[in-house]
Parts: sequence; structure tokens; C-alpha cells
Amino acid sequence: MSETVKYLLPEERLPRAWYNLVADLPAPPPPSLHPATGACLTADDLAPLFPASLIEQDASTERDIEIPEPVRDIYRLWRPSPLYRARRLERALDTPARIYYKYEGVSPSGSHKPNTAVPQAFFNQQEGTKRMTTETGAGQWGSSLAFAANLFGLEVDVYMVKVSYQQKPYRRAAMEAYGARCIASPSNLTESGRKILAEHPDSTGSLGIAISEAVEMAAQRGDTKYGLGSVLNHVMLHQTVIGIEAMEQMEMAGDEPDILIGCSGGGSNFAGCAFPYIGRKLRDGNDIRIIATEPAACPTLSRGVYAYDFGDTAHLTPLLKMRTLGSTFMPPGFHAGGLRYHGMSPLVSHAMDLGLIEAQSFQQTECFAAGVEFARAEGIIPAPETNHAIRAVINEAIACREEGTQRTILFVLSGHGHFDMQAYTDYFAGKLTDLPHDEAALARSTDALPEIQGVKPLISA
Amino acid sequence: MSETVKYLLPEERLPRAWYNLVADLPAPPPPSLHPATGACLTADDLAPLFPASLIEQDASTERDIEIPEPVRDIYRLWRPSPLYRARRLERALDTPARIYYKYEGVSPSGSHKPNTAVPQAFFNQQEGTKRMTTETGAGQWGSSLAFAANLFGLEVDVYMVKVSYQQKPYRRAAMEAYGARCIASPSNLTESGRKILAEHPDSTGSLGIAISEAVEMAAQRGDTKYGLGSVLNHVMLHQTVIGIEAMEQMEMAGDEPDILIGCSGGGSNFAGCAFPYIGRKLRDGNDIRIIATEPAACPTLSRGVYAYDFGDTAHLTPLLKMRTLGSTFMPPGFHAGGLRYHGMSPLVSHAMDLGLIEAQSFQQTECFAAGVEFARAEGIIPAPETNHAIRAVINEAIACREEGTQRTILFVLSGHGHFDMQAYTDYFAGKLTDLPHDEAALARSTDALPEIQGVKPLISA
Repeated sequence: MSETVKYLLPEERLPRAWYNLVADLPAPPPPSLHPATGACLTADDLAPLFPASLIEQDASTERDIEIPEPVRDIYRLWRPSPLYRARRLERALDTPARIYYKYEGVSPSGSHKPNTAVPQAFFNQQEGTKRMTTETGAGQWGSSLAFAANLFGLEVDVYMVKVSYQQKPYRRAAMEAYGARCIASPSNLTESGRKILAEHPDSTGSLGIAISEAVEMAAQRGDTKYGLGSVLNHVMLHQTVIGIEAMEQMEMAGDEPDILIGCSGGGSNFAGCAFPYIGRKLRDGNDIRIIATEPAACPTLSRGVYAYDFGDTAHLTPLLKMRTLGSTFMPPGFHAGGLRYHGMSPLVSHAMDLGLIEAQSFQQTECFAAGVEFARAEGIIPAPETNHAIRAVINEAIACREEGTQRTILFVLSGHGHFDMQAYTDYFAGKLTDLPHDEAALARSTDALPEIQGVKPLISA
Repeated sequence: MSETVKYLLPEERLPRAWYNLVADLPAPPPPSLHPATGACLTADDLAPLFPASLIEQDASTERDIEIPEPVRDIYRLWRPSPLYRARRLERALDTPARIYYKYEGVSPSGSHKPNTAVPQAFFNQQEGTKRMTTETGAGQWGSSLAFAANLFGLEVDVYMVKVSYQQKPYRRAAMEAYGARCIASPSNLTESGRKILAEHPDSTGSLGIAISEAVEMAAQRGDTKYGLGSVLNHVMLHQTVIGIEAMEQMEMAGDEPDILIGCSGGGSNFAGCAFPYIGRKLRDGNDIRIIATEPAACPTLSRGVYAYDFGDTAHLTPLLKMRTLGSTFMPPGFHAGGLRYHGMSPLVSHAMDLGLIEAQSFQQTECFAAGVEFARAEGIIPAPETNHAIRAVINEAIACREEGTQRTILFVLSGHGHFDMQAYTDYFAGKLTDLPHDEAALARSTDALPEIQGVKPLISA
């Protein structure tokens, strides 16, 4: 019994550089394209939305990108995050597998999101930004950016999908505690918001509308920029502190993962842990299996097509080459709000295309069952998103037991569920139903992809 | 900027023994008394409610009480908890003071409560208990006992005050996630509950009623015992892991507290950090100031009398010599539910009587203001209870600035506020008002203390 559970690194071992997967890939990722002209996206195209240093990171081919000291100093508030050996879960499953998890719920906002919120706020402040805008659905990203931007003296406007604004007052309160302004979207503050409200005064909003409002507000003011919590290369980059630390901690444990698992919505917590391991796999040729998990109701990697698509429903964003269900795909209202995105990080999609990772999708009730099993063994109540990773972990561990094979499994526990307990309440009340994706809707939304519409660049891409 | 923020101990440094303050006190604490006979309470009197080992701990005069290995093995899931240097708060306050906090929010349930829930569950299981009952108000203790008891295969029935049961579904969901049964109190399951419901079918319950139900259920079944989250000596004992670790971590930091601060409801997080320091003060004669903080609306230590009183409103418990506002005192409905208790740990009260600690009380809005200031500097959003400690810390740090004096302040950050964000929402909405205690009600409730009623033992005590 009395064996180490937590592998802790001292602050001195905080990574000094983020890891850029692009440097090790056998083929560069396809470029992003301007939505109007179809030309390759330039730094100038993005300048109204992002500071130059982040745009540069998006395009960088350097392997190691230095983490500025002021960012490391804030990371110290919770990083290096602990790596746990799930000894109690192993015993509960009676498996020969060794299960480890990298726990990102120790951050102030309870998830991995501040890993990128902090550098985004830092680089914005360095380049003179006074205010940041962003959108948030469930509120995980909004509260993380609110936390980070406050530390650099930036104002933050968070456009929160109105139905979440009303139903999730806890997250809103967290944003306000950090000094951010939280605005129910659609709002009267923007053109896009006013247009929606004129047509649908009772609109409860959507992530697509909230993105439009946040982007519009950032684009029209010189001192205001936009922050995005997933999908883009620089976000994946910042999250690699997870995997870099995990590698060193696995070494402390004297072990090495055979399987790495993370849940994937826009891709950031998965990429954060996986990319350093993919890089090593590419350099060393080891045969680690890397699995991204997602909801059956929004199976972007498992069932999406690899094509150029818009990042938002309003078609304001650049065209990104990615696994997508089509920007008009509306996933049903399941409980893992962080996994309800029609697209996927272009870099994660590219890694999938190169055969470096695999994907698995799960129904929500089997995911909550896994989360409850985990909580009863290990104590931590995981976020609904994370339960998708845990489902896969438990399945693999059971397979080890049945085959009598020892394997080492590492997964990212992206956040705790303390803000998401309504989902557990609904689960225990039997109110959750399994929601497979709608085949007909998927056919319609992928049919409506821009390449079908003959957008010029897509032909040449 | 780049100086250590977190002082971390490896699991090997987990304390091997709890510290029993009674061993170092110049005078033993007054005995507890049987509510009917007035005689000194015996182990037999308590046997229907608690396992023998906990009853023994309550009466022990040994300084060090060994922590069983299975308990240490569960402590490993989050302990040793980190000690933080609040460098950002110090800078925000522009104070020469050095501020440290021991962060207990890293436990699975988000507070210090599992420190005692785990050993209580262990000793119960060792002595054959199959089921534990307890009461909970806001749900912090209920979810902690649910977590702990599940790990030892015990069933748990939590009687949750009905109004909280309805208003705080998140905590209830956490208890259910750990496999506990959560019952709205008053319930039809007990005599006490049925009696209340017959008279007041719409009763929204009270902690007093919930205690009666939990105690009744435990007393009448041989395989069922009762768990209490604060007040009793064995609870204070288990919490001393906080202070024992903090001492070692302060040594790592090369510093020594001049002032120690903790919020105090029943007294357990305060005692957990303070008792090891009080013990050292008694042995070494150093002049550390130790301050317990509490709400102005329920000023047990600041304004209570030191007398024998019942622990509950229904007068089922033993008579405890403690600081009390009178068991009929009904504090107003302020937001720090964990500090709404009419009494105080007898050991904490005794330490106060011996002049070893002092008390300060604060209004709730000034406490939330302090909590928000802390969150914006340090990231962690504290529980409303903890804000009472933070108010005192900030006041002391400001005094240091004004006097130009350097002092080192250590406080316990007893838990995060992620389950309590409604309180912050109300604070930001301007809905919180300051609630001084009601002088007339206090006079009535202290007049009604049992010694006034001539209960025999109180004369001889």
C-alpha cells in the first residue's frame, strides 16, 4: 500500500520552453487561408485580432520556444502540476495495467486552460493591448482568461452564451471575482449581437454568435485583442508544459507510457500532453499509442472529414484545414460543453492525417459511469469532458486484465468537476440519455463544407 | 519575481503522528458531562456513537498519536498540502510583511475536512462499523465523510438541512458521486424527523434537527456510528497534520511566523494549524500571536461566555465546557455556513481561557472584499469561511506597512470557494448586508444556558 502516489516536481523544474511539434513533423501542416480571398493567411490578416508574438508562434518551425519569465512566475502558482499513480483505481479494476494521470485541476480556475491564458495575456500586455475579448460556453475558458488577464492589468470582456450565463451563475461569479466583465450573448453591444436580437429577441445565444461578438469588438478597437482558448497552434504550443512535465515525472516514477489518452474538443489538453510524446515518437520511433477521445454525439476526429472549414458558425474566421463535422453541425446539448465543437485543432487533425494518433468516441452515460468509478477510487471528481478520457483508460485497463498483459497508461485529467456538478446530478437522476450523432445532420453539414461550394483556395489546397 | 512560491513536501514527509495539545497544556481541559446525570462523561456513554479508538483519542494525554498507515496512504492523495508564499498579495498590498498560506483546498472535496473524515472512517471500519451517519449544512463535511467512508467500504447517510439540500444541489451531487445517501432533513426516517414534520410539515430544517436525526439513527443501530466534523478533541487532533506540515515547510522557507491566523466555526481548521504552534509556544516560550477569526454575526469566541452547554439545539449531546452563544442562539443566514455554530471546540475554548490565543470578528462584506482582493492577487478563490481569516491577514499586513514593521504572517486557507460561488454572486450583486449579532437575542440565549437552569454538574465545574 505505502507506495508513492504523487510525483511532484519543484518549481525549479518548471519547463523553460514550450515544445513546437511542427519542428519534428515529417510534413508541414497545410496553411490557413483568408476567408474572402482564399490566399494563404498572412500575419497582417491576423494583426487586428492577435499580438504579433502569438501570430509568430502560430507560424514558427522552431522546436523550443522560450517561456518568458513573467509567465513562468505565474505558472508557479500551480505548476508543475502533480502526476498521480492511480493505485486505488488499479486495485479497483484488478488490472495489471499501471495507470498514471497528470492532474491539471490544481490551477486556480480548475483546469488546464490557464496554461495558455497566462501567456496570451502576457504577450498582449507586452504589445500594448489594454483589453481582451473572448467568448465562453460553459465558462471554463472565460474564467481562465479573466484570471490571467487580471494579473497583467488587462480588462476582459467575456461574451458568454446567454443560456449558460443564466444557467451557470457559478462560472460567471468566478469571472467577476477576477474582475472581468461577463456579457450575456447576444448583446446590444455589438453589431452582430444587435442583428440577432432584432430578428430573435428571445435568442439564448450560441458559441458561434458569441465568437462573432468577441471578434467584432476586438477588430474594431485598436487597443483590444481577441483571445482563443483552443484550436490555434499557439494554444497547443502553450499547453505542452503538460507533456514536458509529465515526461520528467514518468521518469521519476521509473516508468514509460505504452498508451497516452486525452479528451479532445478543440484539442488543447490532448495536444498539451500528446505533442511532446509524438515528437519523441517521431525522433525515437517508439511505439506509444496516442488516443484522443470524444463524445459520440460530436465525433470530430472519428467521423469528421479532413477539409478546409470555418472555425465559427458565422464564417468570420480564417479557413482552417482540420477534421470537421461542418461549421453548420449543431451537436445536441450534452453535458461536456468543452467537447461540443464542430472542428478540431489543425495540428491535431494533421497528426491524425499522418497516422500519429487515433481517435475513440463514447456515449455520455458510459463516460459518467467511468467518472464516478474514478471518483470513488481516487477521490477527485473529474469534469464531464475528462470523463471521456477516463472511459478509454478504464477500457484499456480492463483489456489488460482480460489479456493478462501489463501496459502503462498515462492520461490527462484536464480539470475537476466542481463547477459542473449539475451534470452529475442529472446523471444520478437518470436524466442523461445517450446521444449518438445525427447521421442525416452530419451528411448535411459536411455537404455544406466550403470546398463543396467551390471556394477557390480549396481547389488548390 | 522569480522566487519560490510553493513549498512542497514529498509524501515521505507526511506526518507519522498527530499532535495532541493536551499533553503540553498547563492545565487539563474541563471534562465533558452527561446531559442527564451531570456526571463526568465515560467512554461507555459515548460507545453507542463513536468507536472506542476515537473515544480514547478524545481523552488521551499522550503528545504524539500515531497515524495508522492506511490513513497515511489516503492522505497521500493530496497531502502534504502545499505551503504558499503570497508574493503577489504582498506586492498588491505594498507591505513589508511576509505572508504565507497553507492551502487545504487541494483535497478531493476542496477543504480541510477530509483530514478527519479519513481517520474517522478508518477507525470505524476497524471496529466493525458498517454505516456512518452525519449531518451537514452547506455540505462541506458531508461530502468529505462521503469521500472517506467510501474508501473503507462503509455506507454513509448524510442528513442535509432541507433548505441546503434544495439550494445546494452541487454538494449533494458530490456526496452521491462518492456513493453516500443524502437525505433532506427533517425526514420521515427518524422519530425526531417525523415529530418535526408532524408539527411543521413545511419545515426547511436546521443543523440542530439534522444532528438529532443522525445521532438517533446511529444510537439505535449496533452497526451504525456517528461522525462529527468539528468541535470534539479527536477532530482537532486529526487536523494537526496541517500545522505539523506547515512548521516543516516554514523551515524550508527559512522563515518563522510572528502571527498565525485561521477562521473558526467549530474550530477544526484553526486548531489544526494552531495547536502545534501553541504547543511549541508553551515549550519554547516564543511570542507568536495566534488569532482565531469569526463572523460578527456569530461571535462565539469574541462575545460568547465560557460555560457548559449543549452541542446541539435539541439537547441530545453531552454538556461541553466551551465558549458559547447559547444553544438557542440562531445566527442570521449569512454566507459562511461553516461558521454559523453557537459553540466552539472545548479545546480551542480552553486555549482561549488560558490566554494562548486571541479572537477577532468581522462583517461579511469586509470579508468578501478581502477574498476578492486575495483571488485577484493569488488566483485561488477562497471559501467564504476562509475570507474571515484573509480579512485579518490583510489588516495585519496593512498595519505592517503603516508601522513600517516587517512581520511574518501564516494563515490557513481552509478551502476553495468553487462550491460556494452563489455567495460571490450575491456579493457582486450588492445583496450582502452586514449582520452584526443581535444583542437582545444573545442576552436571551446566554441567559438560557444550562448552568442558569441549575443543572447539577455546572455548579461543581
